[in-house]
Formats: sequence, C-alpha cells, structure tokens
Amino acid sequence: MISLDKIYHARYVLKEVIRDTDVIYAPRLNPDAQVYLKTENLQITGSFKVRGAYYKISQLSDEEKARGVIACSAGNHAQGVALAAQKAGIKAVICLPDGAPISKVEATKRYGAEVVLVEGVYDDAYERALQLRDERGYTFIHPFDDEAVIEGQGTIGLELMEQLPDLDAVIVPVGGGGLISGLAFAVKALNPAVKVYGVQAAGAPSMVNSIHQKEIVHLPTVSTIADGIAVKVPGENTFALTSQYVDDVVTVTDDEIAAAILALMEQQKLVTEGAGAISVAAAMFNKVPVKGKKVVCLLSGGNVDVSILSRVIDRGLLMSGRRCQLTIELVDKPGQLEKVAGCIAREGGNVVSVHYEHANEGSDINGCYLRLELETRNFEHIKTIRQSLKAQGFKLVDE
Amino acid sequence: MISLDKIYHARYVLKEVIRDTDVIYAPRLNPDAQVYLKTENLQITGSFKVRGAYYKISQLSDEEKARGVIACSAGNHAQGVALAAQKAGIKAVICLPDGAPISKVEATKRYGAEVVLVEGVYDDAYERALQLRDERGYTFIHPFDDEAVIEGQGTIGLELMEQLPDLDAVIVPVGGGGLISGLAFAVKALNPAVKVYGVQAAGAPSMVNSIHQKEIVHLPTVSTIADGIAVKVPGENTFALTSQYVDDVVTVTDDEIAAAILALMEQQKLVTEGAGAISVAAAMFNKVPVKGKKVVCLLSGGNVDVSILSRVIDRGLLMSGRRCQLTIELVDKPGQLEKVAGCIAREGGNVVSVHYEHANEGSDINGCYLRLELETRNFEHIKTIRQSLKAQGFKLVDE
Repeated sequence: MISLDKIYHARYVLKEVIRDTDVIYAPRLNPDAQVYLKTENLQITGSFKVRGAYYKISQLSDEEKARGVIACSAGNHAQGVALAAQKAGIKAVICLPDGAPISKVEATKRYGAEVVLVEGVYDDAYERALQLRDERGYTFIHPFDDEAVIEGQGTIGLELMEQLPDLDAVIVPVGGGGLISGLAFAVKALNPAVKVYGVQAAGAPSMVNSIHQKEIVHLPTVSTIADGIAVKVPGENTFALTSQYVDDVVTVTDDEIAAAILALMEQQKLVTEGAGAISVAAAMFNKVPVKGKKVVCLLSGGNVDVSILSRVIDRGLLMSGRRCQLTIELVDKPGQLEKVAGCIAREGGNVVSVHYEHANEGSDINGCYLRLELETRNFEHIKTIRQSLKAQGFKLVDE
Repeated sequence: MISLDKIYHARYVLKEVIRDTDVIYAPRLNPDAQVYLKTENLQITGSFKVRGAYYKISQLSDEEKARGVIACSAGNHAQGVALAAQKAGIKAVICLPDGAPISKVEATKRYGAEVVLVEGVYDDAYERALQLRDERGYTFIHPFDDEAVIEGQGTIGLELMEQLPDLDAVIVPVGGGGLISGLAFAVKALNPAVKVYGVQAAGAPSMVNSIHQKEIVHLPTVSTIADGIAVKVPGENTFALTSQYVDDVVTVTDDEIAAAILALMEQQKLVTEGAGAISVAAAMFNKVPVKGKKVVCLLSGGNVDVSILSRVIDRGLLMSGRRCQLTIELVDKPGQLEKVAGCIAREGGNVVSVHYEHANEGSDINGCYLRLELETRNFEHIKTIRQSLKAQGFKLVDE
C-alpha cells in the first residue's frame, strides 16, 4: 500500500541524488491565470523518472541489489534507472528495440548501464527483459505500475506544497500514470482542496478512456509527438489511484503541444519534450478550469531530439506569420527575379530560400514558378508583401 | 565609488523584484572541469539587466522619480529598464531604432514603457534619447557605465559566493563591461583567490583590445550572432574596473557560440541567446584555464529569436553529422528515384527534402541532379549511406 510516510521517506532518500527543481512564474502562458512551472526538465537525466527508479532501487534487499536490475525503455525511464543504479553502485541492464535512436542508446550507456539491443519493437524488448530477469535473477523495474516507483514520483507533490503552499491546482502529464498517482496521493493527503488534473495526448488517450469507461482500456495503436507518454494501457495500481485521487484527465492535440513547446522556449527559455510541455498546452488552451487560479504545470522532461525541436519551431513560425512561403508565376524573361527581390526587400521581408521551376502543364509555355521562403514579422506583414507584389503586376499562386 | 556595502544594499533592494536564479551542474559541457551554470536566462525579463536598472532607479531622488527615466536599447536593457520602472511605479521612455524587431518592441511595451521609434540606427536613437532627456528632464539610464547599474549587476557575485562557496573561477560575458565589473568587484572582495574571466565575441572585441592596449579602443564596426554584447567601445568606469579586477578577457568565434547554444539546449534544456551562451563556449573550447577546476559559467540571457535558434540547430545538426545533403547525378529514366529512395531507407536514413533538376551545362544531356536532404545518425552513418548508393551504381556529386 502506498503511504504518505513512504513518500516522505522517498524524499529523504532522494536528497542524495536529485535536485530540488525550481518553481518558476510564467505570467504570459495564460494571462487569465497565475501559471507556475515545476521544472523537472531541469532534473538530472532531464526528467523526473530518476526519482521513482532510485527510490525503488533503494528499497531492494542486499541480495536483490547484488544481482542487479533490468528495465525496458527507449526513453527517460532507461536513463533514470541507469543513473539510479550507478548512484546506488549496482548493475543495470536496459533492453531497447534495435531501432532506438542512437542518442538514447548513448545516453543510457553514459550512465553506466549495459544496453541490450533487441530485434523488433518495444514489445519484443519487453519480452526479452522479462526473459533475462527470469534467467539471471535481475529485479525488473517497472516504469510506472510499482508502489515504490509511484512513491518516488510522489515526492514532487511534497516539494510543490512547500514551494507554493497556496496553490489551487496542479496539471500533470499522464502516460502510464505513475507520476500523477504519486503526486495526487501526496497533494491530496496534505490538502484535499488542491485540484489535480491529468493530461494525455489526443493520439494516446489510454488513461482518459479508462477513467471514462471505469475500467482499464487497451489502445490498439498510439500516435503523438509526445512519445514519452504514448502508452497503450495504464497500470492496475495507477488506474486505481488515478480514479480515486485525480479530479479530471483531459486530452490536447499535437498542434497544441507544439505551440506549448514553442511558448516555453520563447517566453520561459526552457526546452521541453512533447510529454513535458503537455501540461502547459492544457493551461494555455483552457482544457481544465484555470481562470483566476494559481496553477502549477509540471514540466516532466526535456529529452527531445533537436531535429524535432527544429521542426516544431518551423511549424510554429509558419503558424504565427513569422515565416511564409510564396509561389509567384513569372513570365520567363530577364530581370523578373531582381524585380521580385527588390519589392520584398523594400517591404522588409527576408528571403531565406529560393526555388525556380520551369513551366508545368498548367502554365504558359513561357511561364515559370518562383517559390520563395521568407522571414516575416506577422500575418499583417505577409499581407503587405503580397499586396506590394500584386501591385507590381506579379501573379501569386495561392497556397 | 562602487563599494561592497552598496552591492549588499542592492541585493536587499532587489529582493522585491528579482528571482534568485538557480546554479545548475552541467557535467558534460567540459568533462575535464566541474562546470556549473548560473541561470540568469531564467531571470525575469529573460536577462540579468533588470538588476542594474532596478537598483539605479531605486537610488533616484523623489523628484527624479517623478520625472521618469529614459533609455536607449533594442534588447535586454530596454526590457530591464521598462520592468524596473513599472515595478517602481514610475514612467519609462525607451528609444529604439525603427528597424528594431517587432518582438523586442512588443516586449518593451508589455512592461508598460513608452516606446519612441527613431528613424535610423542605434546611434540616432541614442541621440534622440539624450535630446528627450534634456528637453523633458528624464534621467538617462546608461546600459553599463553607471555605478548604481554596476552595483546592481554585482549582486550576482554575492549570490554565487553563497551558492558555491568553494568555486575556483567565474566566466562572464562582456559587452560594455557593466556585468563583469560589478561581479568581479564583489567576488574579489569576498575571495580574491577566485578567478574572474571575461569573454567577448571575436567580431566585437572592444574590451579585449582595450585591455591589451591599456587604453579604451573604439571599434569601427562589430559583427557577431551575440548581438547583446556587440558593443563598439567599453565604458570608462567599466574599463577601469575590468583592468583592475578581471584576470583575463578572451574571445570565441560565432561557430563556437552556436555550438554552445546547441549544447545548452540538448544537454541542459536551457535556451540562451548568443551573449548568454558565450561563457559556456569559452569553457567548452578551453579558452580559459578550467581543467580540474570548479567553474561557474554565467548565462546572462535567453532572449533569442526562435528563427535564429532554428538556424543554429540546423547548422549544429550538419556539423555533427545528424543531417546531410547529397547530390546524385542520375540518368533520366524511369525508376531511378525509387531505387535511390529504397537504398536510403534500407540504411535507415530519413529523407526530409527532395529537389530534382534537369541537365545543366556540365552534365550529360540525358542527365539530371537529385538533391536530397537526410536525417542521419552521425558521420559514420552518412558514409555508409554514400557507400551503399555508390555500390548501386549511383554517381554522387561531392559537396
């Protein structure tokens, strides 16, 4: 049975290894609320997962510790278990599907774990981990459905209640449910009036569906940029605890998550992964009642591939009118490109790429297409540039 | 005269408005040193500048406060003065050149300042600010060469000595020199054994040149991605203080700054502007003696345009082999694109863009060029893909 005593004990044990992460005020994310951020993306290993893993390991018997631990994950849990085992001075084996990104494999090795690459997908790696556990006597560290792991994550709830004693609500990312189970248990034990809301990606709503149907639901497939919480089925313990202690679980779209990632970078100078920013997406887009409230969004992690970040930025720039693409149908005669470039320069647009294509079936035989990508200030600025080009007699092909 | 008393007083006054920013351990930035980050990019307004501005304003007479303050800046100083004035309940006017990015203008207005857009460049805006000061009796808040401003920035030194009492060295970004003057004065007053190093961009080495020539040097032009520290001439006070208290001032290149920005995002989940990351660049590339030392890099700010961040990421990905461009000379017959795509897919490369161009003067009349952009794992992976394409008989055009 999970208990407040054990969460306090976990907090004491964790003092040795984790950072007490800051709570930062974020006035612009939702002007109708007082939004604060609990920055577990700045935790060691880049996510909160090390809390549960380290507390679980600390509770093993000496004999279990001597045999070592095993886990299966391509993400934050792998790094959390690896670092926790390293700090505890015991052996860790992590099973990963062989298609896992090199960066994740390297990060896991960096913390001293033995990495076993398993042919196939996550489920194959999971089967192999259980097989190795049985053969070699390792203790399997479940990513969420384990009481000690849940108690470890619950320490965040204790910290929050000390850092912001008068908070009204906490918004928490939900994958398998380990984090929100521990956190809600701790928060409600100290002050039942504080609301706890969970958020899942619309493409992976396993806990949302389970709560609504009042029984554990298996999703056949999951698809979201928040890969850290793309979980097909919640745990038994975590489903029970979430049902009992959490006020509501809602979903947000991938576009909303991308907007939250971008807002956190621009306004708060913080890098988050999709799962890490999902709580902010819920607050920004009023998916839970935050108006007039003092609300903490939990940023669960920051381990995102920078090439994904680059795509999120590009999409965000397009969506906010700070980048645009123009296709101009030109008559193929000298001086046209210069004229277009001059017009754009006068309006203060900054050309970042140019493609020039000759006639296709839909156009005049002397025609060609000029495709430009511009840096712009906002939608108004784009409109001005388009009007200025039209006034010069150029034909814009609508996107 | 700047004094430790006044820096302590500034610290007391600043308690009302600023955050005590965290110091975060960053084990991977330079494995030969113990590197810590003082996260002033997470300060309110996204930079340390609010410290000096608020302390300066607090020291004005009631009559001066009643008349208001004026400043000239397109960057962090503008936002710092605007917020400081708002918190102190006084009027602030900020002069900006009319070409200033919309985002900076909006940020300054958001803190309640009156923005005056001046036709021309920075120097024109500066002249206009002095003119308005004379006409209307505003107090001009200098961005760096002012004792109260320097004392305000010096509070960071006091915080550091409490947060890491056994530190060996501090690495500090240098523009006009206000930050390093206050910080070095405070740190050396408490412990003269702690080294203080300054860093400038190679394209704007005004303080470096001045220190080496033992007199204030004016640069005719400056050019760097670290726009926050692109200053043509240091201040008189700051030059004197830096000469007396700072151990060395060095330069780093823009590519080194870009690498530091990327490393901070990937490893530490922190967004910094060029000026903010320059201290980390100096530590990463061993520009100052850090080996075996406990070193704090000051992250001075995080106000960077995300489109610049996107370019830094793209460049960083190319430079680390995680993105590559391939140009393949094809014979123009059906099925070629499919064959290339199949080959790349088998090797695990991810195609992100495709351009297909017909023959140019250097190639066969039946030839065409296929230009691909791929996401790759590392340089080894790129080599494998290139070899595999060659083995299939494709001709790669070397970049």
